[in-house]
Amino acid sequence: MTMNRRWILRQRPIGDIRDGDLQLVDAPLPEPGDGEILVRNIYLMVAPTNRVWMSQIDQYMEPVATGEVMRGGTMGVVVESNNPDFKPGDIVEAGMAWEEYSVAKNARRIPVEHDLPLPAFASVLGNSGMTAYFGMLDIARPKPGETVVVSAAAGGVGSIAAQIGRILGCRVVGIAGGETKCRLVKEEFGLDACVDYKAGNALADLRAACPDGIDVDFENVGGDTMDAVLTLINLGARIALCGMISTYNASGDWWSPKMFRNIIMKRARIEGFLVSDYRSRFPEAVAVMAQWIRDGQLKYKTDIVDGIEQAPAALNRLFSGKNIGKQLVRLSPEPAFG
Amino acid sequence: MTMNRRWILRQRPIGDIRDGDLQLVDAPLPEPGDGEILVRNIYLMVAPTNRVWMSQIDQYMEPVATGEVMRGGTMGVVVESNNPDFKPGDIVEAGMAWEEYSVAKNARRIPVEHDLPLPAFASVLGNSGMTAYFGMLDIARPKPGETVVVSAAAGGVGSIAAQIGRILGCRVVGIAGGETKCRLVKEEFGLDACVDYKAGNALADLRAACPDGIDVDFENVGGDTMDAVLTLINLGARIALCGMISTYNASGDWWSPKMFRNIIMKRARIEGFLVSDYRSRFPEAVAVMAQWIRDGQLKYKTDIVDGIEQAPAALNRLFSGKNIGKQLVRLSPEPAFG
Repeated sequence: MTMNRRWILRQRPIGDIRDGDLQLVDAPLPEPGDGEILVRNIYLMVAPTNRVWMSQIDQYMEPVATGEVMRGGTMGVVVESNNPDFKPGDIVEAGMAWEEYSVAKNARRIPVEHDLPLPAFASVLGNSGMTAYFGMLDIARPKPGETVVVSAAAGGVGSIAAQIGRILGCRVVGIAGGETKCRLVKEEFGLDACVDYKAGNALADLRAACPDGIDVDFENVGGDTMDAVLTLINLGARIALCGMISTYNASGDWWSPKMFRNIIMKRARIEGFLVSDYRSRFPEAVAVMAQWIRDGQLKYKTDIVDGIEQAPAALNRLFSGKNIGKQLVRLSPEPAFG
Repeated sequence: MTMNRRWILRQRPIGDIRDGDLQLVDAPLPEPGDGEILVRNIYLMVAPTNRVWMSQIDQYMEPVATGEVMRGGTMGVVVESNNPDFKPGDIVEAGMAWEEYSVAKNARRIPVEHDLPLPAFASVLGNSGMTAYFGMLDIARPKPGETVVVSAAAGGVGSIAAQIGRILGCRVVGIAGGETKCRLVKEEFGLDACVDYKAGNALADLRAACPDGIDVDFENVGGDTMDAVLTLINLGARIALCGMISTYNASGDWWSPKMFRNIIMKRARIEGFLVSDYRSRFPEAVAVMAQWIRDGQLKYKTDIVDGIEQAPAALNRLFSGKNIGKQLVRLSPEPAFG
């Protein structure tokens, strides 16, 4: 008999996620009711913001309650449908939970195009890529020739945001941890330069990489590297505040920018955004980005671990910087495709 | 023989301005050369940003060098002209220095309208009022019915920004220090509520005054009251970052917002601005604001001390919160006017 497995939030992590904070439990396979679908999840998309949902702070949605199944984006295949809008075999996002099977009344259909592999729709053409696209085009709005800095430039969002900057005609400088990532950022993603923050001279290295200062920052990290960016911004700089992964698992107060005063001094703009506000415009962005991929202008990487038992470790990988590209957890095999 | 008197920056203040940081010196009356004008200054307009100019930090213009005359806005009357564009009696801004007489090649002519007194052109229709106007209309952009918070709401910029919010149809809540200022803010400037931050319960009082949260913040102060605002902002809030007077004379690091994370959580926008970027649009704003004054919709207060020897003390008044309305130093009598 097929069972479902789900991760339950048992207690709120303090700092890094540790054993005992979450528990993997067996549950009966859910049965879809009237108008519902049963989805076998294939990919769990972990993201830094998942860690925020585990904390009891005021945020953009309710924190996950202890005792409840952990929230998170999944992509799966419909295996049973009592809803005329969906049929078995449809690829959908449904459930929003760390579980192998989900039942849902509604789902977002993924308009899979068969020349692109399924992980593309869970990364560059999924929430991560959409975050990069709208953050860059709607919030940061760089102009050709401007200097754009992207932190976490080897990550699922940063690698895409950085390449969009390059496609828009900007000089793009990445920030990433370690030589391997920096090489990838330059050679695979085509950035002009990359600062290895682990080398310990982020401010000096960033200054050297940005001889004309910084016009746009696509910020994923916060912390010291963001202060280095704020130190070097030009008049009228724009900072698209996508995330601050460096502080999400802080056990004390959240980080705040020491160089905040430059927002006045440089008449700069910092703006936070959330990809879900752009959901109605995803089709537009998916069409543009899919074409960039086909044209070879836009590359993407996925970093896939197997099995739902790996979900907390996969999330921790984002915080230790182990992942390269979008971190996914494969929960079950892909269906025959195409 | 008429002499000139000028304030020289002798050493960079640490914390508050103290005796010995500046020195008042006598100088010969300057003589205008070819194409130059000689201006007898009437009002010195002190502003919090003057204190920033005394500090050796990266800012929006060069700090004042030690040994040089202190920089600051003045309004005066042309007494001698070798420039065909100006004639004796013209009211101008020229010189930008803490001095009784200035010589300048160029000047900004003040389009004095004789139904309004000269101090109006040094406050609500001068840089302070322009800062309020463009900060509110171009940066903050509140919509009717929204809740707008203005800090330093009894001050030269804040009192005008707050009333513009009211004129635009917003619910406007001021933050000011002490009962007297709060009464003024409500009764004279017509705000809906005022939080007395000196009462010690700024966050709770602000929450009570903003039952629907905060949509727009016109920020002049920074510090704990700005953190209270950031705690209460709504989704999509806009923060026009005009100034952070609470930190300009800090002897250590500048303040940074503890609740910075809400910029992401609430998808908020913080934007710094500087009034000098809007100089070409001053005539538009002066015309609108002058009409609001004539219609009785817009009130303004000036707080005038007499004599150039009072200039450092006048600037210190801003930091101790002694001033009500725009702080001016009268350097010499107004000419017969009209």
